[in-house]
Amino acid sequence: MNVLIVHAHNEPQSFSTALYQLAEETLRGQGHEVQVSDLYAMNWNPVASAADFGARANPEYLVYALEQREGAKAKTIAADIQAELDKLLWADLVIFNFPIYWFSAPAILKGWFDRVLVSGVCYGGKRFYDQGGLAGKKALVSVTLGGRDHMFGDGAIHGPLEDMLRPILRGTLAYTGMSVLPPFVAWHVPYISNDARQDFLRQYQDRLHNLENDQPLEFVRLEQFDERLYPLPR
Amino acid sequence: MNVLIVHAHNEPQSFSTALYQLAEETLRGQGHEVQVSDLYAMNWNPVASAADFGARANPEYLVYALEQREGAKAKTIAADIQAELDKLLWADLVIFNFPIYWFSAPAILKGWFDRVLVSGVCYGGKRFYDQGGLAGKKALVSVTLGGRDHMFGDGAIHGPLEDMLRPILRGTLAYTGMSVLPPFVAWHVPYISNDARQDFLRQYQDRLHNLENDQPLEFVRLEQFDERLYPLPR
Repeated sequence: MNVLIVHAHNEPQSFSTALYQLAEETLRGQGHEVQVSDLYAMNWNPVASAADFGARANPEYLVYALEQREGAKAKTIAADIQAELDKLLWADLVIFNFPIYWFSAPAILKGWFDRVLVSGVCYGGKRFYDQGGLAGKKALVSVTLGGRDHMFGDGAIHGPLEDMLRPILRGTLAYTGMSVLPPFVAWHVPYISNDARQDFLRQYQDRLHNLENDQPLEFVRLEQFDERLYPLPR
Repeated sequence: MNVLIVHAHNEPQSFSTALYQLAEETLRGQGHEVQVSDLYAMNWNPVASAADFGARANPEYLVYALEQREGAKAKTIAADIQAELDKLLWADLVIFNFPIYWFSAPAILKGWFDRVLVSGVCYGGKRFYDQGGLAGKKALVSVTLGGRDHMFGDGAIHGPLEDMLRPILRGTLAYTGMSVLPPFVAWHVPYISNDARQDFLRQYQDRLHNLENDQPLEFVRLEQFDERLYPLPR
């Protein structure tokens, strides 16, 4: 497999870093090719703007997705975006490794989604969900957070973590056609002992050794909807 | 009322811009004070990093929320953050005006949440949800998107929009104690006629004229949970 790890933590010594490095080592040890995009180390620009396009289909009025489509076709999209898009298209598995900020991804990673998941390549027209441009690839979200696991789930104070991660798991990764594996979650990380951290690393290594047996999360399929995307009777 | 509008669109002529300008005019016309943070125009930096702290509680290892707490107390937090935090604390109503990117906020706005909603001021310890540091303020999310309204809701292809916006509405705005009004949504904006856009502007103006009658969305309250944040029996 070709594996891309997209990592987004502002402390190089963080436990989140240990997780991505473990994934890199483990997957290389299994004979996979691994590339890493360490967004903080790369000084990644997360701001989707007119500067992302070397030529403009419409120089008077910016419709970002339209310029993505034209720019990707003409290869005039910004070099930093093209480099990430090339890695993404090369990958069979993409791991997104980050600390939860506001029940979501840090802005530097949100801006990777905004800029790299280019319209016309990753999605567009009727190519989304199971028909998305990245169909055939797997995605694994690997997160650290401050909360305890009993604060998440049905009836818990924050509700299910997967509901909070819905715009990423369903709205972004599944939307582009990727098979989304259940997230790996390390809870309460800033407050736990070194032993507890080692336990999470062992759990993660087990997950990584058995990824091919992981059942992806289930989402809608386009065949359940008509031409105008109204639901068909079941 | 003091009103802060946080606006995040990369095209100054966009319909999203028309929405925020309408809000600014309408609310000023009602005698309210209005400040605008136009994040693209400000060249806002959305990346939470060590550079955000003039002094460090722990220079060896960055725990972003810890440095926020210490930096806000000591007033050594970056000037761009402090300026936004001052506006936020001044405001009685905050309007977040943006186009939906990946069923969420553009990265430039996500990074406003990451950097400005400072731990120790906006939340911290047991100060969250109805006990949050921003309790007493109202928040209104005003969004444009490409999808049609029949693509959202129970049974629809993307499910309810409010479920996709959950990390923002509940996980961010309600978490910090704000009363979150139902979002204002302009559907299918890139594809609709000028008349249809004028209709949305009229609808939005009506909303703005009647904001005091809007019922906030309901979320959990801390009194429903015990000391360790396990749910209490009902």
